[in-house]
This record gives sequence, C-alpha cells and structure tokens, in this order.
Amino acid sequence: MKQLQLFLLIGAIISSFSIANAQQTIKEDFKPSTLNQPGQEYPQVNSQGYARFRVIAPAADSVKVSLGLGGRGGTLLAKTQDGSWMGTTEGPMDEGFHYYHLTVDGGIFNDPGALNFYGSTRWESGIEIPAHDQDFYALKDVPHGNVQKILFPSKVTNTSAVAYVYTPPGYAKDQDQSKRYPVLYLQHGWGEDETAWSNQGHANLIMDNLIAEGKTEPFLIVMTYGMTNEIKFGGLKDFDITPFQTKLVDELIPYVDSHFRTIADREHRAMAGLSMGGMETKMVTLNKPETFSHYALLSGGIYAPNDLKGQSDVKLVFLSCGSKEGPERIKSAADALEKSGVNVVSYISEGTAHEFQTWRRSLHELAPLLFKN
Amino acid sequence: MKQLQLFLLIGAIISSFSIANAQQTIKEDFKPSTLNQPGQEYPQVNSQGYARFRVIAPAADSVKVSLGLGGRGGTLLAKTQDGSWMGTTEGPMDEGFHYYHLTVDGGIFNDPGALNFYGSTRWESGIEIPAHDQDFYALKDVPHGNVQKILFPSKVTNTSAVAYVYTPPGYAKDQDQSKRYPVLYLQHGWGEDETAWSNQGHANLIMDNLIAEGKTEPFLIVMTYGMTNEIKFGGLKDFDITPFQTKLVDELIPYVDSHFRTIADREHRAMAGLSMGGMETKMVTLNKPETFSHYALLSGGIYAPNDLKGQSDVKLVFLSCGSKEGPERIKSAADALEKSGVNVVSYISEGTAHEFQTWRRSLHELAPLLFKN
Repeated sequence: MKQLQLFLLIGAIISSFSIANAQQTIKEDFKPSTLNQPGQEYPQVNSQGYARFRVIAPAADSVKVSLGLGGRGGTLLAKTQDGSWMGTTEGPMDEGFHYYHLTVDGGIFNDPGALNFYGSTRWESGIEIPAHDQDFYALKDVPHGNVQKILFPSKVTNTSAVAYVYTPPGYAKDQDQSKRYPVLYLQHGWGEDETAWSNQGHANLIMDNLIAEGKTEPFLIVMTYGMTNEIKFGGLKDFDITPFQTKLVDELIPYVDSHFRTIADREHRAMAGLSMGGMETKMVTLNKPETFSHYALLSGGIYAPNDLKGQSDVKLVFLSCGSKEGPERIKSAADALEKSGVNVVSYISEGTAHEFQTWRRSLHELAPLLFKN
Repeated sequence: MKQLQLFLLIGAIISSFSIANAQQTIKEDFKPSTLNQPGQEYPQVNSQGYARFRVIAPAADSVKVSLGLGGRGGTLLAKTQDGSWMGTTEGPMDEGFHYYHLTVDGGIFNDPGALNFYGSTRWESGIEIPAHDQDFYALKDVPHGNVQKILFPSKVTNTSAVAYVYTPPGYAKDQDQSKRYPVLYLQHGWGEDETAWSNQGHANLIMDNLIAEGKTEPFLIVMTYGMTNEIKFGGLKDFDITPFQTKLVDELIPYVDSHFRTIADREHRAMAGLSMGGMETKMVTLNKPETFSHYALLSGGIYAPNDLKGQSDVKLVFLSCGSKEGPERIKSAADALEKSGVNVVSYISEGTAHEFQTWRRSLHELAPLLFKN
C-alpha cells in the first residue's frame, strides 16, 4: 500500500505549506474567522491570509498553535499584559480551510474560540482563510437541499452504521414524487469521517449553488465512514478493502436504493474520494465495475490505462489535486488515459495543497460532468 | 420575565446536584464514557455513577473539571507519576448526560477525550452516566428514521436559518408516498441550539424505539434555534417573543408544510420545549392558539387555568420536571388544570435535576400521548 503511505506523507509534509513573504507589512484588517463559535472574536484572519490567535490561560507557561508555515512548527503565542496569549502566523496561509489545535503546557487542546471539525481521527479546531473564489461555496438565498443523517443496518460493522445523504432542492417537495435521481458516493480522507464533506467541504452548498445556476443536474450525494479498518499512520501494509467495500456495495447502496428515489443502476452511480478515499475509490471501482460508471480521485492517485482494460463503458474518469501537490503526475496520467480512449478530465487547484480547498474546488469541477451521458 | 430567570437559576444551582454518599467504596469497574471521542479511554464512568478523568498536560500547574457534586466547585485533578492529571468525582453523579469543561492553568478548554455538545452558548464536553432505564434511548437494531438538516429562508434572522427535522422510519420509503404525518415542534433550552435534542437528547432514537414497539404514532419532529434574541444570563427584562415566534410560525412552519408530507392543520401540530424553550412554548401557544393543539412544558413552567380560558379545544397539556427541581409546582398546576377541565398529564422524572435525562424521559412519556384524538 505504498500509495496510501504517499498520501499520508503528502498530507503531513505539504498540508500547511505556504510560500511566505515574511517581509510584507501585515494589514490590520483582521476579522473573526467565519468558523468561530458564536460570539467569539478569535481566531481572526486578515485580507492577506494571516491568522491571529488569542487564548485565555493566565497561569500557563507556554501556548502554541499548530497552524503556521510549513516546517516551522506552528505559531508560538506570547503572553500579553492582560494575561491572554496572542500571536500571528509568520506569513499568509493558503486560502480555505485548515485544521489546527493548541498545545498548552504540553497538553493538546482545541481552541475554545473555534468550531471543531473531525480530522486526524479527532475533532480539531478549524479556521477559514477567505478565498478569492469563496462565492461558489457561500450560503446564498437560493433553494437549499437537505443533509440527512441516516442509520443503516451493517453486519460488517456489527451495528447501525451512519451515513449522510444530500438530497437536492426539490427532492422533498417534488410535485412529481416519482422523479428519481442519480447518486454520487463521496468519501473523506484519512482521519476524517462521514461529516467532513458537508461540514468542512460544504458539499451541500456547492451543489445548491451549482443547481441554482443551472450548471449541474441534481443528484444525491451519499457520504459514509471509510475507515472501516483501523488504519494507523504508517501501519498500512495489511490494509484490506474488503470490509469497507462490503459495507458500501452490499449494505449501504441497497439501503439507499430502497429508501431514496434513486436511479438504481450503474449508469447513474458515481464514486469519488479524496486522498485515502481516492485510494478506496480506485480499489472499489476496479473490483466492482458493474456498480459504478463515473470514477473520481481527488488528491487520491491515478488510474493507469492498464487498470481500465476491459472496462470499455466507464463514462468518466476525473483526476485532480492541488498545484502544491506535484500535479505533473495527474496531468501525465490524464494524457495517457486520453490516448487510450478513456473519457478523462483532470483539474489542478491553483495555489492549494493537500487540503479541503482543493477538494471543494474539485467537487465544483466534477459535479457538472457527472451523469451527462 | 421572572420565569426565565428562575429557569436559569435552577439550571445553575441544581444542575449537577446529587445526594452524595462519600463514604461508599468506589467500585473499580470504570469504563470509557459512551460519549468519548473514538479510541479515547478517558473520561470513564463506573457502575455507581462516579466519573474519573485523565488529562495530559505535563507542564500545567492546575487542572480542574467543572463536573462534580453541587456547590463544591467541581473535581480537582492531581498530577500522577506519568505526568498526566487524574481525579474522580467525590460521589456518584446523576444518571444521564452532563456538560462539563476543564480549567487548565486558568484557561477554559474542552476535554480532548470527550465529544462536544452545544450548551451554555458554546460547544462543551459531554459525559454519559449509565442510567437504569437507558434502554429507551439506546441504538437498537430497529428501523431508523432520519435526521435532516434543512436551510429555510428567514427574513427575521436575515439569512437561511437552520432546522433539524426527524422523519420517522418509513417516511422516505413509504410505498404510499401520499401518507402524511403530524408534527411536533420541539425547542431546546437556554444556551443550547437546534442540535441539542438529537445529539444529547437522542430524540430520534427515542422515537425509533417507541415506534418499533408500537407505542406511538409516527410523527415528524422539527427543531430550530430558539435564541433568536440575544438572551444573556440575568439580562432578560427586555425579552421579546416576537422574533422567534415570527420565525417559527410565519417562516418555518410554512416551509415544513410545503417541503414535507405533513398534515398541515392545528389538530396535528404540537409544540414542546425544555426550560427556556418551555417559556417560549407557553408564550407562542397562548399567542397562536390557532396554530397548535398540543402543548408541553418540560422543566419549563406551567399553565394556569386562566391562561387557557377560551381555549376549549386544547387537546393536551403536558407538564414535567425532574424530582430534584421542586416538582410540587408541576403537580399542583396539573391538579388545577384538571379541575378546570383541561386534558392534562404531568410527569416527574425520578432522581434527576434540570438536565437532559429529565427531558429524554419527558419526551418518552409525551410522544405516545400526542395526536391521539
């Protein structure tokens, strides 16, 4: 499983890397991050992408923030006259969402000012650096779909397993309650869970906005937990796709097809995943070509032409990553697939790394391409 | 608004009060709380209801847990030989769910071991003390309903407002897609939000289990944010129900009735709320008798016979609280209402205070009484 180890390495090394210009003047136009808890003034972000933190811990000896420029160990806060700890990142952060946490006197805690998001196998603090293209995932005055938490019987996990289902605007109130929809099965990355794509990914708002603009056909998105095996950093030699594949293909898909108005055939079923979810997508789609017809790997590896031999009826292969993730591999893989006759689209997210801004943009590019033929 | 101030006072004083027997021997059968983050060993609870905490903060000078016996200021942790901080509550805690937080060197943080729940206007750590009757809100192998997050247009809040909608098992896959359902509008308490009833309240599991046992008619539950005014502790003199009432009655109800298969009339619409949500329920139901026919106040005050004069067609009044909240007022109010000819049911939750175990049990008692006539 070299491939997954590579994703984790990329995630660890490149994640928060940013080409800093530490000499630039910091603009004092800081505002609370949009992901703060209600009424909380800190953390803050400015128009250049700097993040500023303030933590109350009057008797502490040391407060550090894990977020900062790559390889420099985060941002050390300094005690101020009022007893709070404050500090600003050395340079601007990449646009979009970042996970982080505090280290207070050697203990790891979340920032009481920020909302939490599930990543690195725990709920972590999150901060949002305003992006030049944030409009596509903004909450707007358009018709909204719903995100439903469902519990489905799962023998593999020996319990009721959880999934989230996005149903597009109109699904609930369709006058024509016989209207049926295609489905995208969409997987999170290592350490995340089934909440990631709607919480930090804004998958529902991306879809609501695309549908309002008439840019995509409405479809359902189903998101479930992909770490059915216990997958630990560096311990992936024994990774076995079987438990997750069984849960997805034999348990979840039949449940969704019997509880939602889906078009329950291969032609109207897509699978996509980010990072480790891309690895799972590749394995499941190659093992179960009769189940899916559209495949998408977001910072999640590639298909080689050989992988798809004999799969003449793959409708779409989508490959993407951030420009800071070594995009050449994606481009050359797309070239090779195109030459072998595959309907392939590749996308590089400019200025982003192995983080959610890359994947928000990738979903925004992918959705209009799905279920068109 | 003396009434609301009373609720807040009750919440602050009685919340975690427990009659302790500090002399009893502590059984060493501690297990991780069911509300821990994945893989976390602490906090733990034992079969007597003691809670034990362990926090890593090697360089800290002081770590305290807000949870503990009433009036004693929580539980002070002590540094152990391995550098972690540990401690056990002085006595057993009340059964059910409790909010808490840590104070580390004077700073307030959540416990990294526990999941977070929205209470006291922030996401707080939560712990679950096993209850003798926990079966009624357990996750079982029965058909499950869904909990949907919806966004509805709200001029009052000047944005898309959020609500959660529980749809019972069968709602989605009903062969007869013309089947329509009654609706309970269910409000949280002060400092909580629209996530409280499904996260810490387990409203969905309570309903799934009751429906599986044939003990209640299936109905929808709609939960939205009730602190539309900024309501601060002690600053309630200017409380005005109008913004919340407008959002609920003029915006949310029409949205739900047009986007879900409801029976959109007064006879099939109930309102209930806990604590401050009870105060809101009382005000809205008395202002809008044409909208609701079933009223329930959970640790949320009472109706006097005079309040309901002229409302001859109230189908049900339900009043409840915990036995540690001064239940005499509930009982005497129910007696007075009964004498005046109102169909009233009262319920006292044994051994619980102004906390969610009281409200889980209250919903469990209330649901079978709704929409029967």
